[in-house]
Amino acid sequence: MDFRETLEQICKQVDGALAASVMGYDGIAVESVEMERPGNAEAEFNVQSAMVEYSSVFGQIRAAAEQVQAGEASEFSIRTEKLVAVGRALTPDHFVVIALAPEGNLGKARYTLRIRAGSIAAEL
Amino acid sequence: MDFRETLEQICKQVDGALAASVMGYDGIAVESVEMERPGNAEAEFNVQSAMVEYSSVFGQIRAAAEQVQAGEASEFSIRTEKLVAVGRALTPDHFVVIALAPEGNLGKARYTLRIRAGSIAAEL
Repeated sequence: MDFRETLEQICKQVDGALAASVMGYDGIAVESVEMERPGNAEAEFNVQSAMVEYSSVFGQIRAAAEQVQAGEASEFSIRTEKLVAVGRALTPDHFVVIALAPEGNLGKARYTLRIRAGSIAAEL
Repeated sequence: MDFRETLEQICKQVDGALAASVMGYDGIAVESVEMERPGNAEAEFNVQSAMVEYSSVFGQIRAAAEQVQAGEASEFSIRTEKLVAVGRALTPDHFVVIALAPEGNLGKARYTLRIRAGSIAAEL
């Protein structure tokens, strides 16, 4: 299965999903999908740029966790007014991230990434 | 009610809570409480230092969210092998954070911080 199909399935399984990506910690996406967004409430807001920016944050989280000997960082979530992002580590170089609308199902997003991470990582 | 009492109540309400702090984004704690930890599995691991380190990460998350116009960052969670940290913004300068054991109740931690944030913020 290619990443695009997997990411589309993930988005369809999670209420409120706006986009999903497999990304490097350098902010370069291996694959990204973006859902159609009804209305234009978020028209001025670029989900893809947000995920690129967050990739650097996730890199900093990993470094901080290593610094304090808390072990490997496996998952993060960030809630802002317009977006919830949930990321999960795949390999030392890559992670998968879902962007949700603020009212989206964060628990389902975390669950879905946890279930899918192994098979995505196996293809990286 | 002082912060210490509030933080202790929060820790008691959340299964697996190890510690809680009201902190500045500069990493300086206004108040911190740490629960007794059974056994010594995590003896080499300092929860307080982790929270100080994460305060800088949360600051970076806020900056990233501002950068991509995602609105104000209100909440974050970071899962590592030994620790789950859940933070919630209180004021432009302060946030509250709970550190949990990996098997702790993340959903309850988020809920409890959301419910308590207003009254803690009012005293800052």
